[in-house]
This record gives sequence, C-alpha cells and structure tokens, in this order.
Amino acid sequence: MQFFSDNAAPVHPQVMQAIIDADQIDAPYDGDAWSQKLDAAFSQVFETEVTAIWVATGTAANSLALAALCPPHKGIICHRLAHIEQDECGAPGFYTHGAKLMLVDGEGAKVAPDAVTNTLAAIRDDVHQVQAAALSVTNASEYGLTYSPEEMAALGAVCKERGLGFHLDGARFANAVASTGASPADLTWRAGVDALSFGCVKNGAMNAEALILFDRDLAKDTRYRLKRAGHLMSKGRYVAAQLLAMLEGDLWLSNARAANAGATLIAEAAGDRLLYPVQTNEVFLKLGPGEADALRAKGFDFYDWGVVMPEAGGEARFVTSWNQDAEAVRPLADAIAAL
Amino acid sequence: MQFFSDNAAPVHPQVMQAIIDADQIDAPYDGDAWSQKLDAAFSQVFETEVTAIWVATGTAANSLALAALCPPHKGIICHRLAHIEQDECGAPGFYTHGAKLMLVDGEGAKVAPDAVTNTLAAIRDDVHQVQAAALSVTNASEYGLTYSPEEMAALGAVCKERGLGFHLDGARFANAVASTGASPADLTWRAGVDALSFGCVKNGAMNAEALILFDRDLAKDTRYRLKRAGHLMSKGRYVAAQLLAMLEGDLWLSNARAANAGATLIAEAAGDRLLYPVQTNEVFLKLGPGEADALRAKGFDFYDWGVVMPEAGGEARFVTSWNQDAEAVRPLADAIAAL
Amino acid sequence: MQFFSDNAAPVHPQVMQAIIDADQIDAPYDGDAWSQKLDAAFSQVFETEVTAIWVATGTAANSLALAALCPPHKGIICHRLAHIEQDECGAPGFYTHGAKLMLVDGEGAKVAPDAVTNTLAAIRDDVHQVQAAALSVTNASEYGLTYSPEEMAALGAVCKERGLGFHLDGARFANAVASTGASPADLTWRAGVDALSFGCVKNGAMNAEALILFDRDLAKDTRYRLKRAGHLMSKGRYVAAQLLAMLEGDLWLSNARAANAGATLIAEAAGDRLLYPVQTNEVFLKLGPGEADALRAKGFDFYDWGVVMPEAGGEARFVTSWNQDAEAVRPLADAIAAL
Amino acid sequence: MQFFSDNAAPVHPQVMQAIIDADQIDAPYDGDAWSQKLDAAFSQVFETEVTAIWVATGTAANSLALAALCPPHKGIICHRLAHIEQDECGAPGFYTHGAKLMLVDGEGAKVAPDAVTNTLAAIRDDVHQVQAAALSVTNASEYGLTYSPEEMAALGAVCKERGLGFHLDGARFANAVASTGASPADLTWRAGVDALSFGCVKNGAMNAEALILFDRDLAKDTRYRLKRAGHLMSKGRYVAAQLLAMLEGDLWLSNARAANAGATLIAEAAGDRLLYPVQTNEVFLKLGPGEADALRAKGFDFYDWGVVMPEAGGEARFVTSWNQDAEAVRPLADAIAAL
Repeated sequence: MQFFSDNAAPVHPQVMQAIIDADQIDAPYDGDAWSQKLDAAFSQVFETEVTAIWVATGTAANSLALAALCPPHKGIICHRLAHIEQDECGAPGFYTHGAKLMLVDGEGAKVAPDAVTNTLAAIRDDVHQVQAAALSVTNASEYGLTYSPEEMAALGAVCKERGLGFHLDGARFANAVASTGASPADLTWRAGVDALSFGCVKNGAMNAEALILFDRDLAKDTRYRLKRAGHLMSKGRYVAAQLLAMLEGDLWLSNARAANAGATLIAEAAGDRLLYPVQTNEVFLKLGPGEADALRAKGFDFYDWGVVMPEAGGEARFVTSWNQDAEAVRPLADAIAAL
Repeated sequence: MQFFSDNAAPVHPQVMQAIIDADQIDAPYDGDAWSQKLDAAFSQVFETEVTAIWVATGTAANSLALAALCPPHKGIICHRLAHIEQDECGAPGFYTHGAKLMLVDGEGAKVAPDAVTNTLAAIRDDVHQVQAAALSVTNASEYGLTYSPEEMAALGAVCKERGLGFHLDGARFANAVASTGASPADLTWRAGVDALSFGCVKNGAMNAEALILFDRDLAKDTRYRLKRAGHLMSKGRYVAAQLLAMLEGDLWLSNARAANAGATLIAEAAGDRLLYPVQTNEVFLKLGPGEADALRAKGFDFYDWGVVMPEAGGEARFVTSWNQDAEAVRPLADAIAAL
Repeated sequence: MQFFSDNAAPVHPQVMQAIIDADQIDAPYDGDAWSQKLDAAFSQVFETEVTAIWVATGTAANSLALAALCPPHKGIICHRLAHIEQDECGAPGFYTHGAKLMLVDGEGAKVAPDAVTNTLAAIRDDVHQVQAAALSVTNASEYGLTYSPEEMAALGAVCKERGLGFHLDGARFANAVASTGASPADLTWRAGVDALSFGCVKNGAMNAEALILFDRDLAKDTRYRLKRAGHLMSKGRYVAAQLLAMLEGDLWLSNARAANAGATLIAEAAGDRLLYPVQTNEVFLKLGPGEADALRAKGFDFYDWGVVMPEAGGEARFVTSWNQDAEAVRPLADAIAAL
Repeated sequence: MQFFSDNAAPVHPQVMQAIIDADQIDAPYDGDAWSQKLDAAFSQVFETEVTAIWVATGTAANSLALAALCPPHKGIICHRLAHIEQDECGAPGFYTHGAKLMLVDGEGAKVAPDAVTNTLAAIRDDVHQVQAAALSVTNASEYGLTYSPEEMAALGAVCKERGLGFHLDGARFANAVASTGASPADLTWRAGVDALSFGCVKNGAMNAEALILFDRDLAKDTRYRLKRAGHLMSKGRYVAAQLLAMLEGDLWLSNARAANAGATLIAEAAGDRLLYPVQTNEVFLKLGPGEADALRAKGFDFYDWGVVMPEAGGEARFVTSWNQDAEAVRPLADAIAAL
C-alpha cells in the first residue's frame, strides 16, 4: 500500500462520473455550462461572492495568485519549507517575472506573525532592497499542521497593516477545514486572505484545482495571465465538472475526513515516534534502524523524508489519501504498532 | 450542429476508456507507466528516436518549444495569422521572456522560404536589432492548408543554412498527414523540424497534447520549464493515457480522416463560394446577404470569421471534428447547396 | 565632416563644465544636490509639477516609461519604424516582461489617430488576443517630422477614450519644440502624454537623458525598476548636472535650433532631391548614381539609409548635430547643390 | 569628512582628464577608438585574452554576468550578505528572468567551498527543485575581506566539478589585488572564474565599470543583452576612456593602495574595537555609548551599519576612498584613538 503522497491516488468515482457526464459538445475554453457555474458554487462554500478559476495544477494556481499580488520588483514572504519555495521549480519567479521569495522559519512549516514583521523590519525602505508585497502561507502546512481562524486573522491583520497581499496555498485546504471544523470563510477572506489555491487533485480530482479570488478585482488580469501561461484548456468543461463534483454534497470534506482519519489512526499507533502532531493527513515518524525496511517488507511504501527534502530533514513521511480511511490503513497502523 | 471549432468536440470513446483504465494508483507526475511509454510510442510513429512530453494545451506545447529554440533577446519568424501570434495572448513572449514574433505574410497562412529570407535580409547584423533565432510554421495552417514534404524541406533548408531552429505547430498535424498521405517523418525531422506540437485535443482527446522533440538535447531544460510553468500535472497517467489511445491503431489518423472527409463534402457543396481550397477540416466560405442567417435558422452554427479575426477578414468558417464525417455533415452540405 | 548621427557629437562645453563643477563629494545615487533639483527645473519647463528621473540612455528612458504604462500581458501601439521597435534590440520586451509592440504604418514614421483606432478595432476583446495598453509616438519622428500640439491632442484623446497610456519618445524633442515653436506643455501633458523620454544625448549631453513623468504616480515603481535594471548610477550628480546645464538658459533649445538650421540649409540646397520635408535636423535625400561617392570623396560622411534600415528603405540620411549649424554645414550644402 | 562609501568620492583627476580628452567626434556606441582598445588593455592586466565590456554600474555588470551564466530556471549560489542579494533591488532576478539566489552563510561575507557543496547536497536532482547553475562571490567581500588565490582556486574547483559557472563581483577587486599582492590572473581565470565585474566607480571613475569575460563565448549574447537593457550608451568613448585611464600606469592599483592605507591607519587606531580584520578599505567598529555622536561632532560621517543593513547587524562602518589615504584620514584615526 502506497503512502508516498495523496497526489497519486485514483480519481474519486463521483468525479470520474462527472467527467463522463461532461462528455458532450459545449462552448470551448471556459464558456461552457460547467465553468459558468463555478463562481456561484464556490461563493456558496465561502459565504461571499468570489471568482473561481479552474487550473490543472496547484503550481499554476499558486503562481497565478502570487503574480496577481506581487509586481516583478517586489517580494513574497513565505516559509522556508513552503511548496512554492521547495517544490515548484521556481514557478513563482516565472509567473511574477522575478519577484523574490523571502524565507522565514517556523515550527512545522507554519508562519507566525512575528516572522513576518521581523522580515519586514530587516528591509530598508529604499530602492536598493526588494520590498515585500505579499505573504503566502499553506493550510494545512507542508507538515500537515493547521492554522486556526485566529491564527489566520492575526496574519491577515499584519498584512492589512503593512499593505501586503495575502495568499493561501490550500493544496490540502479541505483537510484543514475537516480537521479544524472552522468555516471556509473564517479561514480565508474573513481573515484577510485575497486569493486561495483550493486544492482538489490531492483530494480525489484528476487534474482540477480552483483559484479562488476573494479580491475579485484580481480576476481580470488573472484571466489573461492564465491564457498567456497556456493554462486555458480548450475543453474546460471536463475540468470544471471535477470541481463541481468535489463540491457536490461536500465530497471535498468527506474525502478529507477519510484521509484525516486514516492519518489519525496511524498516529495513534505511532505513539512517541511522531515528529509532529497529526492534524490532517500527513504523518512524520521517527523510525529506528531496520524499521523502515521492515515496513516496506510488509508492502508499505513511503518516503524517507530526509532524502526527499534534505533541507527539512526528518525521517519517514506517510500521507493518506481520500481512499485510505481508518479502516484502509489499519494494516499499516498494526505494522507500526508491532515495530 | 456546431461547426465553430474542433476544439469543442466530445472526447473519442477510446480516449475516454483509456482515461478510465488509468484510474488506479501509480507514480505521480510523469513517473507512471503510461508516461514512460510515450517516447517509444511516438518514436515508432516518427521512425526515429524522439522525446515526447505531454502537456494539457497546444499553447503550452508551442510556447515550450519556442522557449527551447529562442533566447529572450532574439526573435521567431512566423505568419501574421499564426496561432502563436493571434490567439495565445502573448504566450510565446511569456515563455521566451520577451522574444519577438517577426511576422510575415503568405497565402492561406502559409509561410514560403522567400518570406523567411526576406525577413532575415531586412535585419541588420548588429546589436540594435533583434536577430532571428527560429521559424515557426503551422501544418495544417490556420486556413486549413497543408505543407508537402518538399515545402517543409525547403523551409528546413533555409533554417539550417541560416542557423534557425524550426518549430512546427501541429495543432492539426493529424489532418495534414491524413490529407497529404506524407509520412510523419517526412513532414517533420527529415525536413529539419526540431520540435513539433503534436495536437490531439482538436482530434478527439480531452486535455492532452504532445510536445515532440526531435532534437532530444532540448528535453532536459524543457522539463524544468514545464514544471516551472505549472504544467507538470500530478496525475500524469490520465494525460499520457490519452496520447497512447490516440496512437493506438492509428486513431489519430482515422479521426483526422473523418473530419477531413466532412470538410471535403461541405467544400464540394460550396462550389465557388470557397475562399480557400479545402485540404483538411476547415472550410472558409463567401456567403451572400441573408445566407448566414438562413444556415443558422436550420441549426448550423459557425463563426463569422471577419468578426473573430478582424485582421484576417474572410467570411464564414466551418470546422469539422472527428465525429463530423461526410455522413454527419451531409445536412449542412445540402443546406449550402440549396442556398 | 560626419553626418551619421547626432548621437556621436562632442559634448557641449557648458555641459562639460557642469560635469567638472560637479566633481566633488556628495550623496551617492540620486541623493545629491543636483539630482534633487531636477523635478523643479523640469516642472518649470513644462509649467506643471513633474517627476524627472535621470538615466544614461534613451533606450532606458523609453523602456522604463513603457514598463510603467503596460503590464506584461498587454501591448503597445507604435509605428513600424519607431526606435523602440527597430533599434533597441527588444528592450521594451525586456522591461515590460514580454509586452507586444503592435505596429502601425504612417507617413514619415508618424502615427495618426486612425492608425490607433484601426489597430484597436482589429483586436477581439477576449483573453486569446493581446490587448493594447499604451501608445508610443516619437516627436520629432524617426524621419525628422514633427507633431503639432493639435496632432498630439488628437492622439491623446484617443488614448483617453480607449484607456491607453501615452508615451512620447522625445529623443529629439528639443528639435521638435524648436521647430514648431509650440510649448513643451502643449506637446506633452496638455495633450494627454503620461511619460516623456526627454532626450539630451543627441543634443549636446554626454550620457544623460531625462524621463519625465507627468503622471507622478508612476514614479514610485519606476524608481525600483530603474535600480533593478542597474541604471541607478552611484555618482548621479555627474548625470544630473548635465541635465541642469541643458536647461540652463535654454541651452537645449538653442542647441536644437542650431542643428535644425543646419538641416534646413542642406534641405534648401537639396531641392527636389528631398524625400521628406525637413522640419528638424534630419535630411533624407535621393541621390543619383555616383553622387554618394562624390560627396564622400569631398569628406562628407553619412548613412546609406537603405542599408541601415532595410525595412524602411530610402537613400541617404544626413543628421546635423548641435555643433553643425547653418554656417558649419554650408560646405555640404554647396556640395549637394553642385551635384 | 565622509566615510559613508567609496561610491561618493570625486573622480580622479586623471580620469576626468581622460573624459575631457575624449571630447571629440567618433563612432557612436562602442565603435569608437577608446572602446576598441579595451580588450587589449584588460588582456594585458589579466595575462590572457579577455573580452572587456564597459557598463555604467556594478549592478549592470553583475547582472549581465549572472544572466550569461544562469538560465531563468536555475539558481546562483551567493552569500546571504552579497551585494547582488542585498543591494541591487533584485536586479539578478530581472536580468536572468527569475533565477533564484541560493543564500549561504560565512564569516565576513565570504563563501567557503563547504557552503557551496552543502547547498548542492540539499537540492534534489529532480525537476521540482531549482538546480544551481552558478556561484557568485565578492572579492573584496562586502565586509572588506579578501580571498587568496588558493581560496579562489578551491571555489573554482568545486564549480568545475559540479558544473557551475563562476562569477566574481569585483566592485573592490582593486583593493583586493592591492591588499593581497596576488596577480589579477591568479584571483580570477586561473582559479576558474568565468566572468568578473571589475569595479572602477568606487575607485576613482565617474560612471564606468568593466565586465571582464574570461569565457569569451559569453560575449556575443551579452552584447545583445547589454543593448536590450538600455546600457549601450551612445557616446561610449567617454566611458571607455575612464577605464583606460584607470589602467594607465596602474592607477587602479595606486588608488586602491591609498584607500587601503587609509583604512589600515584607522584600524590601527581602533584596536580591539575592530569587528573584522581590515584587509582592504572597509572598517567595521564597535562603538560605545555616545562615541558615534562624539565622532560625528568632530565632523566625521559614517553609517550605523545595523540601520543600513539590519540583517547583517554590526555597528559603525567607515569606508575610505582613493583620496583618503593614511595622511588624509589621520584626523579620524586620532579621534578614534582618543575615544
């Protein structure tokens, strides 16, 4: 059983069915009936009028958001281990035309308000230094930790006070919402978030993510940037249909809950091997000599995290997917408990 | 019945089935079994070792190819009506970091060797003027016309002599191959083409195009650029599977033949209303007063081309898709004949 | 005697003296006393509050202005023979991060309002086509022709109506003002110009041009872009001093008048050999067989314009400099008259 | 007396005279007699054939070098306090089209081979992470420390082994050569350096730096990039003349020796107030309460370094210029000794 990443799981059957149901002629690009429903569907989720734009990847969603919030000559504050810094091959630099990622530290890949203000304090207000224009945080974080509405609001307050745009990388936003029980609105625009990468691929979709713009003025230029980046697919209905299926009946939340439950079960079995609290669907474990091999011998695959992410260090990472709920991962939990 | 564009047609059933068959866990990105088969599958089609990279859109394929062939400070010669100039919102400028499209004229959106050499002759060889680095042509052209192997070879000879990279936008390459009966190899690398955007979306795929690199040295940097542009989808198998399905049993050619046959039938009905010879699946007609309305009243939809493409002018454009073969389009042909 | 270009002339003695007078310690970059006086000095010339920024080259001034007026995904309308298109090696594409130059035709390298509106009319209002964001014209034009205040105002009205920024390349603005007698204000901001490249190098300076921002909100980002482009010289006082010397006692106008007078004398001698009316300091002549050689044999150097600018064609170009007034160029005039 | 920075000093009389002597007509841009002599003059200094290109600023020299050595999708390893990271407003990101600066630590702003290899070790060899393409170090460093030929060679060996380009920011290269007595060749190309920013502005020039390309293949594209960046000044002779004057009679070294001697005298007076050894012309001092004020009261101006460079911290920085030799700075030395 694979625990490498939730980005390799199959597509949820309801999403696949939605794709099949979209298999008919309609207007090209985003002129079709499915694409046209996205704004309303996401506005309902977020309890406010939003613009929702489909893209095929989280990297595209993140980069388009950052390009909307940061001009080429400024910078974006983010965690040193943020996906935008570590795992997108410099995509933000490409989309922003060279803006700088300004790296901060923080436990579990979370950013604290102090880290932001300290970064700002270290920048002289003159043309020789790159000035900050935006903050980007990830919820759930790259280590599976969540931000509470209060934590988000505190960051949002700093952004507002200091004139920073506020982007939320929500590759696992569903897992964070499912875990905290907080409302999508409280975790985003009510806390000052301007743009959200609403992840679906890691949560049961095939190749559909949503870029949610709470600041709807950002939409116009973003649509041009999207096309210019080659991300405006001709047959958008197959993408939009996935997003609508994810929202239908709150599939996004039930999928996330299942994955979270799987991770929780693993965490319970892991006891003091845990390197971080397990709040969503990622489990980082300390394993003794031979233990990784023992688990692999039983058919469990996962990453040696210190190899994947040398800067981060750590040991073994297990990520559960929408189809790996508590029941499904019990064999792994048992194997870990038996170590 | 819609004849707006082949980019809005449904997905061919064999392609949809391939997507469904890929619905299982496998390595993420392009590490899966399907993606790993692409080089071999396309190498067979082209009778030489190629690197084949999947992308979701033709704009991405074109732009990645051009970025591989042209540095930021140089230029790409193309037709004034080329898709890369007219319909990609400046994507080549984004991917190349500002390279210049150098526009030439030519009947039916085709580029002749003279147009290339004349453009080169008008550029001073000094640092004040942007120098040309590449040529990009489209086969079938934006007006549905094909290049013969000899025409391609003549262009390739100019490129070789003048040190230009050679890109072929093959959004409708299948239609061109089906129409001319020429071999894919003769229309590409044997004529000197370095990189080909092998279109599938307009020919029955959902969201999969292939970037074919005949100059395989271009692959390494291109893979980084692809990721950096947010085009490396997590679940690449669903994309790769589409391409494999298109090649399986030469579906790409039978689909193209069907679309071409539909266009041919329309053309025969159109007689001297034709503005261009119909060689593939696009038909441009001159219609008299009230005739467009008459056709629409009978349920046939199409573009007033002078509205869509003011610079090009022209009148009514009909494009047939893989599911609009001669039999399917007979009602339109009859309606045109009856005008 | 050389008539290749006014960009090769010596520095005017008053400018050189100003440089020498600036040879003392002061604050670096643009914090010095000279740089601090620029806004006031140029505001007086233009009868309104402007921001004046020194740069070393006209290409930098033009590109910074265009970057301030056009985002990466839009375009700038300009003449096919404009310096920004022909002679800056794609600098606008670099500074704007890939914006497109949208080329129009027009006699004598001048742009008419119709050319602008026709260009706009040919652009579909959708995300597939690059939208125009700005207009750039050159006064005096690349063929030495001037715009009247009325002509500028007509262009400005189009810009205002269509939401375009308006840039004026004034590499030879002094010659245009001297020729028309129009006020600097009427030729710029009163006609709707947002940013002006105020040329000095071709008019007696060493390496100092002024970027004049009538829309002063453009200044903040522009200062960062300037630094980021490596154009913020450490010892700015030597540059600022040149600009102040050019304005002092209207040296910029007397220099331009001298050059214009030289060109006028040549034009009078040339009679019907003239290809364009001579309004400033450029003279384009039609020469018969052997005549270019004959002039060169007498020591007069000039460009065969068809060689320098193949796209433009034309024959012999003579440009007079600040130190080539009517008296100085009389030998050339006599030689032409004697042909 | 000012000790803010060597970038505010007057121009050395021999340099000013060279500018005045260049005040005549000649070919524009870099076609003049002075510019044409640069390659030969610098080749003599470096004991090998080099290409020498003038630019007006060190930021331009650095950025052009980095753009030549690093494609947009890769990264440049440099010190966290490097000028290219701290003080150029993201210019490398602009010129490279978004390449990433990969920051390392090291005493006195120096980079050790281990820091480079550790950085490389932390980068996974896959397309998700930005790969390193170049190393940039500064000699003398931003804290005035020098690299020996052996230290440079050790860095060069890492670059060669790992396929990195090697750039040297030599804003104060003259001071480093003067201090170490090492040959220019040993500190550069013999150690594997591909491109050097040879600083002159901080050493007595007005607005002339030299970009020295030891890898002469880099020159062709660089000349286009230079023009495209608006750095090809029309009257290049006034810039080239400065560089020739700096080399003439080794003025660059005598100026640097004078500045170094001034700093050494200050250092001797400072005793254990010194925060770094003084090897060139920068002195960083720890001052007690009121002491900075006391020095300023006596007319000595300098930076509170913790204010200028919050990330670096530190206290008072004094920089001596070419005209502040031991004799000139004695009053400051005495004042410090008297604290």
